[in-house]
Amino acid sequence: MIKVKFMPQNIEVVCKYKDNLLEVARKANIFIDAPCNGNVSCGKCKVKIINGRVDTKKTTHITDEEFDSGYVLACNSKVIEDIQVEVPSKLSSSMNKMKIEDSSSDVYKKLLENCKQLISKNHMEFKSYVRKNYVTIELPNLDDNISDFDRIKRHLRNTFGYEKVTCKIETIRKIPNILREGNFNVTITHIPKAGNTTNIVNIESGDTTDKFYGVALDIGTTSVAACIVDLYKGKIVAKASSGNAQIKYGADVINRIIYSTKKDGLEKLNKAIVHETINPILESMYNELGIDKNDITALVAGGNTTMTHLLLNVYPDYLRMEPYIPAFSKSPYIQAKELEIEINSDAYIYITPCVASYVGGDITAGVLSSGIWSSDENVLFIDLGTNGEIVFGNKDYLMTCACSAGPAFEGGEISCGMRASSGAIEKIRIDKDTLNPTLGIISNDKPQGICGSGIIDLIAEMLVNNIIDRRGKINENINSNRIRFDENEIGEYVLAFKEDYNIERDITITEVDIDSFIRAKGAVYSGIITLVESLGMDFDMIDKVLIAGGIGSSLNIEKSILIGMLPDVDKNKYSYIGNSSLMGCYLALTSEDARCKLEECSDSMTYVELSVYPSYMDEFISACFLPHTDIEKFPSVKASLGC
Amino acid sequence: MIKVKFMPQNIEVVCKYKDNLLEVARKANIFIDAPCNGNVSCGKCKVKIINGRVDTKKTTHITDEEFDSGYVLACNSKVIEDIQVEVPSKLSSSMNKMKIEDSSSDVYKKLLENCKQLISKNHMEFKSYVRKNYVTIELPNLDDNISDFDRIKRHLRNTFGYEKVTCKIETIRKIPNILREGNFNVTITHIPKAGNTTNIVNIESGDTTDKFYGVALDIGTTSVAACIVDLYKGKIVAKASSGNAQIKYGADVINRIIYSTKKDGLEKLNKAIVHETINPILESMYNELGIDKNDITALVAGGNTTMTHLLLNVYPDYLRMEPYIPAFSKSPYIQAKELEIEINSDAYIYITPCVASYVGGDITAGVLSSGIWSSDENVLFIDLGTNGEIVFGNKDYLMTCACSAGPAFEGGEISCGMRASSGAIEKIRIDKDTLNPTLGIISNDKPQGICGSGIIDLIAEMLVNNIIDRRGKINENINSNRIRFDENEIGEYVLAFKEDYNIERDITITEVDIDSFIRAKGAVYSGIITLVESLGMDFDMIDKVLIAGGIGSSLNIEKSILIGMLPDVDKNKYSYIGNSSLMGCYLALTSEDARCKLEECSDSMTYVELSVYPSYMDEFISACFLPHTDIEKFPSVKASLGC
Repeated sequence: MIKVKFMPQNIEVVCKYKDNLLEVARKANIFIDAPCNGNVSCGKCKVKIINGRVDTKKTTHITDEEFDSGYVLACNSKVIEDIQVEVPSKLSSSMNKMKIEDSSSDVYKKLLENCKQLISKNHMEFKSYVRKNYVTIELPNLDDNISDFDRIKRHLRNTFGYEKVTCKIETIRKIPNILREGNFNVTITHIPKAGNTTNIVNIESGDTTDKFYGVALDIGTTSVAACIVDLYKGKIVAKASSGNAQIKYGADVINRIIYSTKKDGLEKLNKAIVHETINPILESMYNELGIDKNDITALVAGGNTTMTHLLLNVYPDYLRMEPYIPAFSKSPYIQAKELEIEINSDAYIYITPCVASYVGGDITAGVLSSGIWSSDENVLFIDLGTNGEIVFGNKDYLMTCACSAGPAFEGGEISCGMRASSGAIEKIRIDKDTLNPTLGIISNDKPQGICGSGIIDLIAEMLVNNIIDRRGKINENINSNRIRFDENEIGEYVLAFKEDYNIERDITITEVDIDSFIRAKGAVYSGIITLVESLGMDFDMIDKVLIAGGIGSSLNIEKSILIGMLPDVDKNKYSYIGNSSLMGCYLALTSEDARCKLEECSDSMTYVELSVYPSYMDEFISACFLPHTDIEKFPSVKASLGC
Repeated sequence: MIKVKFMPQNIEVVCKYKDNLLEVARKANIFIDAPCNGNVSCGKCKVKIINGRVDTKKTTHITDEEFDSGYVLACNSKVIEDIQVEVPSKLSSSMNKMKIEDSSSDVYKKLLENCKQLISKNHMEFKSYVRKNYVTIELPNLDDNISDFDRIKRHLRNTFGYEKVTCKIETIRKIPNILREGNFNVTITHIPKAGNTTNIVNIESGDTTDKFYGVALDIGTTSVAACIVDLYKGKIVAKASSGNAQIKYGADVINRIIYSTKKDGLEKLNKAIVHETINPILESMYNELGIDKNDITALVAGGNTTMTHLLLNVYPDYLRMEPYIPAFSKSPYIQAKELEIEINSDAYIYITPCVASYVGGDITAGVLSSGIWSSDENVLFIDLGTNGEIVFGNKDYLMTCACSAGPAFEGGEISCGMRASSGAIEKIRIDKDTLNPTLGIISNDKPQGICGSGIIDLIAEMLVNNIIDRRGKINENINSNRIRFDENEIGEYVLAFKEDYNIERDITITEVDIDSFIRAKGAVYSGIITLVESLGMDFDMIDKVLIAGGIGSSLNIEKSILIGMLPDVDKNKYSYIGNSSLMGCYLALTSEDARCKLEECSDSMTYVELSVYPSYMDEFISACFLPHTDIEKFPSVKASLGC
């Protein structure tokens, strides 16, 4: 056996001769970002060998200088002797950092206000799918000696009108002692169903109705966000987020699905989301609030179809193979203990319904909170997270499609990309004379990389300043120390020199990155146009455009249009609605009416499979240009570029 | 630590100084019968110390001779040094012996014939609550790419008309691969519910409809009986029974309930019924038939209220405390895996409903198979197992009560009592001149003890031959070697001398036994009369009397009337209907119509709590006489006794 020690974690593990270094790190629970899941294509899993040697090859992702000082790609290295490995701090921490967020911030207040208006405008009620009722049951005597459970049923029928009351045997097991401990004063947690039926999920002695919390949970491919809601007062009391720990098995859903087909792959992915992501997020909030997990009696989770399959431990491989079939679209309520999610183990979890393999529960939740279903106007809803999903509709119809944009909008598969968190460059302005950039960095931290909105800014600025042409190629005739070409003549623009910021390496964007991003934005634009035109409509008929998702609130609409990602319609029609999936889960959690509306929306959404539209591929190719091969489609850009 | 070795099992265990020997045996899984659950009152747990000494006291249950040769009561002995203990073979084997029964016997044929007539007469159908359907699902394609589960739901709606189809997440997990393994030809096991709904409980690839078995299970306090039914052909294919392994924790329900309140008591009782009784019975039948447990997809179990609580691991202590409240009367369907019963782990188990603390699911099942609910005549139904339960009614009403008769009818709490199995004396005739008995022994085996029907015969014969008087006291003036008195002047009659049969000890009946039995029969008689008179009716209005239960088919009705256990009505009105509980479970298993009828019967049964009837105690005291203090109530007996 060979010993591998990881620094600065100071964790030593043993492995076999020629074991893959990335796999060894995963087994040791060392987080190394590997968006391409070990295909030697993204270059993100760069580590430094500080003692010993590995069997490796130099790749284009590693400079000569780096290679000489010990840098290798973990995925491309085999362990052949005892080694010590340094994992760059950026890799080991930035993606997975836990963040307790301020739930009283302005963005949140506005989103919550919108939700409240939506509920009241549609005559709906804030009342969760889970109910907690304190009841005083009639004491038994010899003349009235029906069973404990029958007595509870009778009380619920007489008091609340439930004709049928069900519960699992494990609840029945609790009843006799709980009833008598509280002298027949008990709190009953139950889930009402159609037809005057309710299902008791828990019984406690005494009055515990003041401890009545629920969790809304958005499970993104890259990031996971959650909030705890006081269902008694109807208030968000905590909010937190972190990276999705599955990222070590691949940055996008396709790589995760492939990983799930490997031995124990599905179990590892499930463990990564439940035990390494969701439970730590929940626990951090419990600590923050000083509440007990047993007081959480409801949870609504939304995620894309792959995330939903992985959360429920359902084999997802048929999602990626034509004809792209999910195992399920609607899941039954599931007990927390079945998923090992750390809330009250008897609580039932509601998973927001999916529409198709690539339009998931995050989108149906987003449709719910965005209120498209109650709008008279035609609304275009675009979720720009990992991949892009599009919904177009109003109160009478809802059309949806997915475009395989990949993880570029959250910084994935971009050499210096990262998600929109502390240290991410989110805004860029390039001086037309010096070609030097001015950077807007999240938290005004040292720059660590570029997030989605930063890349849009950067590409737009490079285009406007002629650093790149409309194909995304760097102008070789510019004389600037920020522009350089490697041995393969692949150009890059330096956003931040390491010396200027005292960081480990220069932050750059390469022609390869730009090409990746152009394909991503092309997928979105061609998706939008195909969806709208499939209805025989055109962009003039769009009344409103809502942008949601991980791309971040600093998304510059004007520049997004300039690079041809978004349709060239009046900028005032656009608004950014943040994490609409989380807000949708919040609504489904706090309002049973809203939850039913969500089910209704998902039933009525018509999924358009882009790959069967013959025009889609042509549209895509035309859109892989800045902004488009047909500049007439972008009149405002035509003017500003002076084409 | 002290070593205790049990022979002939040759099992050695260690225990602490002064540990109770009965508890040590239980921990070692050595079966020692202890009907009184270690109260030093029944004298059944007699063992022989063959090496070493114990801290014990002589009791009335042990003769001087026995005491000198090392016999002690295990419950009354503390371990103080290393010992070797001989467990008499009768104790260790007779109660718990597994018996594979001939399901083609005449008794069974008749019972099954009755069931079939009942079903057809009431226009019901033989169709189980569980269905297995082989279906060919439409293959998916890009134009029809709904999820696998939605596809199955659509097929079931189009083919069978189910508007709503539910299933658990664990079934969804199976769907994607099972569907594709069978090229979308699958067998779906499901449980239809009201309102065009069905619940899928299993999915298998290919056609498995020919392997479709169910189990009917009667859980008695003393004995457990089961049969396997081929639900495809509608035929009983195996039948087996054995003692209830809980008996080591007490012979009757009261002692078991008391045991359940001890540390780990409930878990031990649950383990005894599931793992030490039901699963071995099932496995013996699987071996006999050569079928796999996974082919058993339905199970219906009936037992008294205490047995039902213990089976489901529900704390039963409030059953025995006024006002005698069960935790539940109707249980939800429960998955086999939750109860750890060795059938297909996904199969759902139906538990027959209870009516009150002492009228359980065995009685409602008995009511179902006896057909009282469809009878125009007034039927008296008496279940004589451990305890006695009585139902009186016809198609318009059903009244029921329970009498605390204890385990005497199955041989419990009688010094030489045993259940009606091989070696039990079931028929007795005493020669009026010699006072020698002629014994009818089950299987013509060596006599090992007396069962319920034997005790009735014996007491009746002793009464007719003036060996006992009408109080049950032995006539001191008879000169016979079969009649003897101990130092406390307690008389006994010897049924079988050990020398005559080469057995370990004489088989006798003592005045204490007779007194126990008189109280048991008095409880039954006073229960019957109180129930009938509570309706303002009298015995003349009884059209039919059905006797069911463990007392056995050799019950002599004439003698049962003679000792005052059963009402003195025309003998032709009586019939013995065997294990009506098992037959009721068979019906509920094989016919969903019958199962619904069972629910209906249990809802409509009116429970009469005898203890609130002021007349009941007087009736009981009057009935604790042979046949009764008021001989006028037994005109036929008056004639034959010549009173």
